[in-house]
Amino acid sequence: MNIKVVLEYDGTGFAGWQRQSERRTVEGELRAALRRLAGHDVDVVAAGRTDAGAHALGQVVNFRFDRLRVDRVVGALNGLLPEDVSAVSAEVVEDAFHARYSARWRRYRYRYLGRRARPALDRHRCWWLVGELDVAAMRSAAAALVGRHDWTSFCSASEPAGHRTRTMRSAEVGNAGAYVDLELVAEGFLRGLARGIAGALAEVGLGRRPPEWVGELLAARDRAQAAKTAPARGLTLVEVIYE
Amino acid sequence: MNIKVVLEYDGTGFAGWQRQSERRTVEGELRAALRRLAGHDVDVVAAGRTDAGAHALGQVVNFRFDRLRVDRVVGALNGLLPEDVSAVSAEVVEDAFHARYSARWRRYRYRYLGRRARPALDRHRCWWLVGELDVAAMRSAAAALVGRHDWTSFCSASEPAGHRTRTMRSAEVGNAGAYVDLELVAEGFLRGLARGIAGALAEVGLGRRPPEWVGELLAARDRAQAAKTAPARGLTLVEVIYE
Repeated sequence: MNIKVVLEYDGTGFAGWQRQSERRTVEGELRAALRRLAGHDVDVVAAGRTDAGAHALGQVVNFRFDRLRVDRVVGALNGLLPEDVSAVSAEVVEDAFHARYSARWRRYRYRYLGRRARPALDRHRCWWLVGELDVAAMRSAAAALVGRHDWTSFCSASEPAGHRTRTMRSAEVGNAGAYVDLELVAEGFLRGLARGIAGALAEVGLGRRPPEWVGELLAARDRAQAAKTAPARGLTLVEVIYE
Repeated sequence: MNIKVVLEYDGTGFAGWQRQSERRTVEGELRAALRRLAGHDVDVVAAGRTDAGAHALGQVVNFRFDRLRVDRVVGALNGLLPEDVSAVSAEVVEDAFHARYSARWRRYRYRYLGRRARPALDRHRCWWLVGELDVAAMRSAAAALVGRHDWTSFCSASEPAGHRTRTMRSAEVGNAGAYVDLELVAEGFLRGLARGIAGALAEVGLGRRPPEWVGELLAARDRAQAAKTAPARGLTLVEVIYE
């Protein structure tokens, strides 16, 4: 059977999603749990390869697995996974379903905290910026990101030139208690894109750049003009949408 | 000067607020930082003595301190405090101000997560209950708590009998994303009260007791009829209100 599982994880203690031989990763933990359940190695596909320190409320994976009835999969996985990863749901999907290639939209949230004092309770879950953030300016800047664009100015230079065009469905900024949340929904997130955008919007929020600068930066297609990349701890993969 | 400081902390790594000789506590860390700043021991008064594992967004403390200008206190404390405690603000208050006795109202939040799968990202921040919670029933049950009552059925037996009457200003239950939040505002929280109430409301949320049971339990003034005390990790001291 092809099984789709939604995963939640606290990225603080992980060197990201992708398996590495010497470091603790979410994929590594999931594969270790699946190996114990299946009795052999199980390949896993994930919708998004989150960075070290980034979190997920709705990461989606799929894998081939026949050892248990699907309604037992969540409980069996959670009995084997460490406390900072949890399987939230599991279902049987058609053979053609591929967590990465079948995904239509991905929703990421980037959380800022703008105040003088450093955070304690959410220290691993937000980017602390000293000063009050101008949410209206950030919202105005984010609007320029919506649409189909070449993201060279924001994504990692390791993404191949000429293959950096993706559609951003929405880019919204709002207050969430003491925090400011940026929510991005795009068909795909190139490596470093969410954090690159979050870094640029921080410049606007802190008043160091005018809102128009983000749209100009996008149009310039020049990574050298960009802002500092925002730290991964503020980033959460909230949801992956399939149609 | 009499200095009032608002503190935020992640209670996960602490044996509660109150200083203990052998264990890590929030008061112990604050006093260690103040000792370094002042050059001598500084007594500290807190609005609420939170339990081991309980959190604070708005704990209030006061202490006598003359070594620094008040606008330097937040930065100086945060330079010495560990990463799971943060001073959010500091101000000079009148000599008569006492963080505990001057407090008019305290606001606590208790957070539940009702779903089949255990939480990973908020595992230290909520009480996981297997099943969907009936928010309307919980809200109806909580309404019976508002007013001036003897809290014998909910507070710790260590509170002296005949001194268990306090006013509850509001008791509200609402959805917060996937979570259910109980918000209690009372003039004072007897030892174990917030967690005792949270435990009783969980019974109602899970459908094991009808909403009326909470009011009946309150009227019975009998701890033996109460539910299991809810775990401290779901509890946050949100705000202390002075008038």
